[in-house]
Amino acid sequence: MYSKNDAALTPPMGWNSYDYYNTCVTEEQVRANALFMAENLRQHGWEYIVIDIQWSDENAGTRDEHQYIPFSRFCIDEYSRQIPAPNRFPSSRDGAGFAPLAEYIHSFGLKFGIHIMRGIPRFACHEHLPIKTHDGRKITADMIANPASISKWNPDMYGVNHNADGAQDYYDSLFELYASWGVDFVKVDDICNTNMYPNNPYSAEKEIERISSAIEKCGRPIVLSLSPGPAVIEKAWHLEKYANMWRITDDFWDSWPLLKAMFERCEVWQNHVSPGCWPDCDMLPVGKIGACFKCFGSDEHTTNLTRDEQLTLMNLWCIFRSPLMIGAELTKLDDFTLSLLTNDEVLALTKNPAQAKLVSRSADYAVWVTRSTSSAAVFGDARDSADGVSSGANGGRGVANFYVALFNLSDDPHEVSVSVAEVHRTLFAASSTAPCANATTHARDVTCAEMPATFAVRDLWQHKETSTIKSDEVLSAKLAPHASLLVKITEER
Amino acid sequence: MYSKNDAALTPPMGWNSYDYYNTCVTEEQVRANALFMAENLRQHGWEYIVIDIQWSDENAGTRDEHQYIPFSRFCIDEYSRQIPAPNRFPSSRDGAGFAPLAEYIHSFGLKFGIHIMRGIPRFACHEHLPIKTHDGRKITADMIANPASISKWNPDMYGVNHNADGAQDYYDSLFELYASWGVDFVKVDDICNTNMYPNNPYSAEKEIERISSAIEKCGRPIVLSLSPGPAVIEKAWHLEKYANMWRITDDFWDSWPLLKAMFERCEVWQNHVSPGCWPDCDMLPVGKIGACFKCFGSDEHTTNLTRDEQLTLMNLWCIFRSPLMIGAELTKLDDFTLSLLTNDEVLALTKNPAQAKLVSRSADYAVWVTRSTSSAAVFGDARDSADGVSSGANGGRGVANFYVALFNLSDDPHEVSVSVAEVHRTLFAASSTAPCANATTHARDVTCAEMPATFAVRDLWQHKETSTIKSDEVLSAKLAPHASLLVKITEER
Amino acid sequence: MYSKNDAALTPPMGWNSYDYYNTCVTEEQVRANALFMAENLRQHGWEYIVIDIQWSDENAGTRDEHQYIPFSRFCIDEYSRQIPAPNRFPSSRDGAGFAPLAEYIHSFGLKFGIHIMRGIPRFACHEHLPIKTHDGRKITADMIANPASISKWNPDMYGVNHNADGAQDYYDSLFELYASWGVDFVKVDDICNTNMYPNNPYSAEKEIERISSAIEKCGRPIVLSLSPGPAVIEKAWHLEKYANMWRITDDFWDSWPLLKAMFERCEVWQNHVSPGCWPDCDMLPVGKIGACFKCFGSDEHTTNLTRDEQLTLMNLWCIFRSPLMIGAELTKLDDFTLSLLTNDEVLALTKNPAQAKLVSRSADYAVWVTRSTSSAAVFGDARDSADGVSSGANGGRGVANFYVALFNLSDDPHEVSVSVAEVHRTLFAASSTAPCANATTHARDVTCAEMPATFAVRDLWQHKETSTIKSDEVLSAKLAPHASLLVKITEER
Amino acid sequence: MYSKNDAALTPPMGWNSYDYYNTCVTEEQVRANALFMAENLRQHGWEYIVIDIQWSDENAGTRDEHQYIPFSRFCIDEYSRQIPAPNRFPSSRDGAGFAPLAEYIHSFGLKFGIHIMRGIPRFACHEHLPIKTHDGRKITADMIANPASISKWNPDMYGVNHNADGAQDYYDSLFELYASWGVDFVKVDDICNTNMYPNNPYSAEKEIERISSAIEKCGRPIVLSLSPGPAVIEKAWHLEKYANMWRITDDFWDSWPLLKAMFERCEVWQNHVSPGCWPDCDMLPVGKIGACFKCFGSDEHTTNLTRDEQLTLMNLWCIFRSPLMIGAELTKLDDFTLSLLTNDEVLALTKNPAQAKLVSRSADYAVWVTRSTSSAAVFGDARDSADGVSSGANGGRGVANFYVALFNLSDDPHEVSVSVAEVHRTLFAASSTAPCANATTHARDVTCAEMPATFAVRDLWQHKETSTIKSDEVLSAKLAPHASLLVKITEER
Repeated sequence: MYSKNDAALTPPMGWNSYDYYNTCVTEEQVRANALFMAENLRQHGWEYIVIDIQWSDENAGTRDEHQYIPFSRFCIDEYSRQIPAPNRFPSSRDGAGFAPLAEYIHSFGLKFGIHIMRGIPRFACHEHLPIKTHDGRKITADMIANPASISKWNPDMYGVNHNADGAQDYYDSLFELYASWGVDFVKVDDICNTNMYPNNPYSAEKEIERISSAIEKCGRPIVLSLSPGPAVIEKAWHLEKYANMWRITDDFWDSWPLLKAMFERCEVWQNHVSPGCWPDCDMLPVGKIGACFKCFGSDEHTTNLTRDEQLTLMNLWCIFRSPLMIGAELTKLDDFTLSLLTNDEVLALTKNPAQAKLVSRSADYAVWVTRSTSSAAVFGDARDSADGVSSGANGGRGVANFYVALFNLSDDPHEVSVSVAEVHRTLFAASSTAPCANATTHARDVTCAEMPATFAVRDLWQHKETSTIKSDEVLSAKLAPHASLLVKITEER
Repeated sequence: MYSKNDAALTPPMGWNSYDYYNTCVTEEQVRANALFMAENLRQHGWEYIVIDIQWSDENAGTRDEHQYIPFSRFCIDEYSRQIPAPNRFPSSRDGAGFAPLAEYIHSFGLKFGIHIMRGIPRFACHEHLPIKTHDGRKITADMIANPASISKWNPDMYGVNHNADGAQDYYDSLFELYASWGVDFVKVDDICNTNMYPNNPYSAEKEIERISSAIEKCGRPIVLSLSPGPAVIEKAWHLEKYANMWRITDDFWDSWPLLKAMFERCEVWQNHVSPGCWPDCDMLPVGKIGACFKCFGSDEHTTNLTRDEQLTLMNLWCIFRSPLMIGAELTKLDDFTLSLLTNDEVLALTKNPAQAKLVSRSADYAVWVTRSTSSAAVFGDARDSADGVSSGANGGRGVANFYVALFNLSDDPHEVSVSVAEVHRTLFAASSTAPCANATTHARDVTCAEMPATFAVRDLWQHKETSTIKSDEVLSAKLAPHASLLVKITEER
Repeated sequence: MYSKNDAALTPPMGWNSYDYYNTCVTEEQVRANALFMAENLRQHGWEYIVIDIQWSDENAGTRDEHQYIPFSRFCIDEYSRQIPAPNRFPSSRDGAGFAPLAEYIHSFGLKFGIHIMRGIPRFACHEHLPIKTHDGRKITADMIANPASISKWNPDMYGVNHNADGAQDYYDSLFELYASWGVDFVKVDDICNTNMYPNNPYSAEKEIERISSAIEKCGRPIVLSLSPGPAVIEKAWHLEKYANMWRITDDFWDSWPLLKAMFERCEVWQNHVSPGCWPDCDMLPVGKIGACFKCFGSDEHTTNLTRDEQLTLMNLWCIFRSPLMIGAELTKLDDFTLSLLTNDEVLALTKNPAQAKLVSRSADYAVWVTRSTSSAAVFGDARDSADGVSSGANGGRGVANFYVALFNLSDDPHEVSVSVAEVHRTLFAASSTAPCANATTHARDVTCAEMPATFAVRDLWQHKETSTIKSDEVLSAKLAPHASLLVKITEER
Repeated sequence: MYSKNDAALTPPMGWNSYDYYNTCVTEEQVRANALFMAENLRQHGWEYIVIDIQWSDENAGTRDEHQYIPFSRFCIDEYSRQIPAPNRFPSSRDGAGFAPLAEYIHSFGLKFGIHIMRGIPRFACHEHLPIKTHDGRKITADMIANPASISKWNPDMYGVNHNADGAQDYYDSLFELYASWGVDFVKVDDICNTNMYPNNPYSAEKEIERISSAIEKCGRPIVLSLSPGPAVIEKAWHLEKYANMWRITDDFWDSWPLLKAMFERCEVWQNHVSPGCWPDCDMLPVGKIGACFKCFGSDEHTTNLTRDEQLTLMNLWCIFRSPLMIGAELTKLDDFTLSLLTNDEVLALTKNPAQAKLVSRSADYAVWVTRSTSSAAVFGDARDSADGVSSGANGGRGVANFYVALFNLSDDPHEVSVSVAEVHRTLFAASSTAPCANATTHARDVTCAEMPATFAVRDLWQHKETSTIKSDEVLSAKLAPHASLLVKITEER
């Protein structure tokens, strides 16, 4: 037994096959990426290896016309559950499923994830094939399917009629199987935003509850990741209750307009980031990607994001604490991309217990800030200790440290700035003044000593302290188009 | 200097003149209600006396045709700031403003609030009247007004052009005046939802920032309350940053459809309730209300809500922790209504530090739950101690107490129920089992002793324990149409 | 070869099996209704006998749980085309299809219609069954189906991918078959509003074009009727180009709110009524209806519309010139309902060549007017002669006759009125004065003689002249709730 | 007395001061443009000279900061009616108003138009100034104004409360004055789409009725033009009843995306074009424009539309029969622009009585067609003779002539084509075959002789016949990006 949130106390970090392999990844390719992660990325916190969509389809490797082949049969077991296509995943033969591959991945101390579509195979319904029930009741696929609930983009499944007798049995049987294979992470698709707007973009709400319950019962902690986005903010509470991560955006790719749009999505979702609950900005389309996308007329290419844009991507994802899933083929990582993914000072932000906050945003810029551990105490804000900041033994006297990210969202060079006072107002909910070095704080009574504090400003990509700043000053940076600055600001004693 | 959130660490409770007096309340009436509160309600936590809209209008007492008189002049000072109409508030004469009345209210240990419309009087703009600037710059009302920014329902003001030179001076001058009067609470209207949907229902966002800044500077903690609703959930983060309470609904009156609709609003906003940040379900239209509404063809009447509906109202507002503002003329309170407003066991919920959660809702029912102090520790959920629950010295062994509210939203008698296990799943984010009496909890490892715990069930309106329930049982109640049950569930040792 | 519009020069009038028989009608029942129509209704203009949905499904008679049985097989021929279920339509055996039944219906001088869903059977796609092509190309159902295009309410079909090779062949093959049976009318469903709002409620636009083309080629005039509504007003031009009638409303049933809502729909569509192009208010749910609707928990009942409401229904449908399809089981018609459907004076309106116009509408009332033949000439408005009004030989001197319908839409008795001058302004586009008896008209120069004209007012339900009115007077009626008055106003010479 | 529609039997053609002069035009400039029109354009059908917004404002010539000066006073008479600013329109002094200028314009056989905002001056309301009533009732501006009804973009007026006593008097008094000046055309602004979407973009509906009634009474035919757009298609019937032209688009300027977007607007409105009823695509921003727009940071410039785009503009506006209002300063017309505006073969389309129809449209192309006079008869479609096509004396044997416009909407060269058969299907509502030279037509029975007809294809910009085409062939053109072809197709005998 476990708590939902314990499965993902910090934002999951890993690799997903989709951005490079689309629907076509093979066991050999998965193993190669796992090996690369074990040797080069694991020490920086990367741990999940996730196989994305269509792993049960034998024809996946040969398709040029369709991304998804309509009216095709894919591999299922005797209970209408998808199993790996044996031609693509040889170790899965003879009923082994993904267990051998999971074992291989686990052998490196890594974790294993898979993608599923919500629902039940359409052909199983039209052929009236059986599902597994916990008590042997005879139920067939058509009896639990909703013929009006389909994906707008994938032809494989009918949604499950959550009220049908057998609906929970079916989902229980899926996760029983996945747990037996050793699956640690499931990305469930066509479930977070079913695009039925405005009628009901969140129409699969009850299937989420069924799946969450199935995970609870399966005896194995499995991270529940929901796609696609954009998630519906009105349902934040429901996502927080039942899932570990959920996409707040439609598919993200290597394009500046999509990256710029993410700033709005993060703004809306900023107050919904907490342990076990991770609004998801989607994968990192860096390095080599897009190899198996002939159906869309494209081929392997290096990310279209500039280096500045890639840094902006990392800075936003990390300060916001999005899950991080690498899209690149790992064995083809160049040095720059590798450096992008292994900066421990930046990745540390994803483990930071505080919730980041937007200071301000326009079409031209954005400023995000967050506290670093133990920063709250100096302002005497006991309520905020929930964010993982414990008051020191010195009676509320802690260290006022924090991170600031400045982003130039415009297409021209731009100076972006924020005052230390405004950072503090944002982080400490309108406590009215700049932080002071010798504060003794009580509710409604903050006394500052006369001398403003001095802070060291450390650039997390240059890995050095680049300046100092006083508590009554303004932090400012001249930024190239689409570029950003990420600094840690630490009080000097 | 103070922190925004310190001005309202718990949901404000008080009386507001609107539901009974509409635009027409007089000083004598305000004093009578303050006296009644001091003598009968203060000991139960009620403290604010708030004068609602149109207090600067001398004609307010005589209007039958309009709620708001278009193109009228109302009372302003030499800086275009509204001042009380002297015929209605005699103590305000000779420049005293609301100071004498505030002093009277403060003398009882109560607090004083006023209503304002955002913006600047239209006639001051058309007459080019001066505003006050901090440095003596000569600026007139028209120079800071936005002629396209008006209320859809009130003809008095133009919105302030937040970019104009003088905009901040103007709002600063308002709150400087209010602080000098001793105002503790300001309800700013036409600012939370300006009804410009879908273009921009939150179009006055920047005026909120100006006002928040003015409060910070004014030297007095003033609760900032924003109206009308519904607030925009996408802007929750902004409201949490700048305001203390904001209406999540359009005007609420004594009608069951409006009360039923509030369950959806509370569902959406449940994860945004915290100290200093209070989503507001609007006033309590109980007792005698509606006296001065001839313009709408109505007159003084007793609330149209049945007693069951009134209890449902109190149960929802209190478990959700909405601000509570009584709409009734206090001096006419009957015994039932008085009992409704003075049930300390129920009102205690508003001081409860935990955030309530919806378990489930349909057209027919709703179930809300929340922890009571120290309930979390037994489940070993250290993260939740932020909600005011401190782990006991016994190594995580606390007491699993909580509140449950069951609501029948249908028009027929209905049995509403919830299992103790589901309550715990909801409160502790999917920790998977019913609470057990002898748990030792670690992350991903909860061991229960074999014996289920037993809880006492206390009905907070009957003021007695009505039953016991075990941790593997279901709490159930047969409820009349629109009725509800509010119980506290305490572990028996 | 024929013109689309020639198939329905006036609004089609007939009987449809749905309102009484739902999905379950049998050949015997159809024949009985046809016989009744031939003997009792044909002389009043009724001519179509239409078999609605699910006629290819053998199980249709036994269903209690579902309206539509998911994942069932229904009857198709060797080209994936639906054929009548032989257990329900015995004469269809041995490949006869609906030809014998059509012949029976034609023998009375009546016409025969059927319902189809757009698209191709889902099971034919999953089983890769063949379709018929004009040149023998081998194409299977899955090759022309769009797996993402389904009905939201019926599980039988996939939409046709209109770009696929074979798409036109398939629809051609359907109408070739229907023409061979002698079908005169096809109601195509899930095609007019596919409920994909706001993305694209008119997403089946290209299938409409395919079907229209198939009808052109089939060699038989077939009325093309599109369902369900509400049709999208932005696409009026497309509907006018390709179809004969289209539903401007969702399913209409015997409820006053639905009837009241139709007044708004008619208002919007009033300028799109012309020969061959009929906005459709849906069936007439009068008499005995609802017999086979156990799946919805209901059973045979007499219409819930009051007699006043039924008259209002007929008055609106007829003056607006909606198609008229009787929902009642004809053999059970009572005298009142029969009289409702056989009032030749009222039904004459559907043959009236002029387009009716709304004068005004509020929540409480509506006033519709239309010209009767030869009314325009007196006002010298040559442009309007297109509406079927020919100028007299007397140099523009015609007869100013028109119809007026007054409707009380409120729940209280209400006097509804309209001036003769306003009727004329509405009908003749702002010609400025009341009609006069001795007008000599030129553009921009109307000279009236001094004497106002006098008109006889004939009540079309009382079948008599009830009053006279002068051209400078007001026509007024005190109407019971939901009642209406329909009069013809004829100039007295 | 006159009919609304007689005021604009064909689409109005003229010049409007806005595109060049913004708010600042003077009498001298108006006179110069009128003179130019009289000498160079009148013989091609151009006749209206329209003074656009802010002619009553004395400060209009000096503004750099605002387009509209908030809280300013402008010139009104003793009845709160705007009068020309005497510094800008010297001939208007001493109560002459626009009468002398109108007389000057009329002296050339041209017509005179002015712009007004709906509503009543705000300052007149705040100052309680009188309006004129027909019977001497004393009513002031504030008594008929709606303080919540303002323009989103212009600060001058309050909307009129149409229910107020005096509302009709006020609008009557305006048009009485305009008629006395000799005004022939009024462009009423902030009335067609008040941008209150989705609540009510057509919220000024009742003011339109008041104004229409005022025009009826004023004794002078005045064209009623409504702005801004986009007009609401659901209200087409209301616009057709009360107005002569209405904007179907927001302000149109010299940008390709705006021009491309017009193809969608014309598609939607195509069935609402008729004598007296003209959906309006807005002005022609050709030649020199934009001179007085410093408030927007721009200055006089030559249109940004390429020559191909300008031809596309003219082709669409003319075949659709939009009103044509030149935006250029006429005295600065270059030869190309002059040729664009004086092509009588193209302008003849605006006088063509048939309604144009879209054949098809995609992101890449559009095809429009319309009949030329007498084209219908050959197809025996008597109903269409309403469009101005009279059957010949030869018993239905006429000439099948029509216009075709092919547009390349893509950014690449593109071949655009349409078959003659499809043209006929579109123009004659699905008569199924290509036109034949020797048809004898009856309803449902068209017999074609064997020989296909031959047509001459005349390019209306080259002014010559460029090819011939047979009735079973396809008309095709290779078009440069954004270019178009406009041809007249005439049967050869």
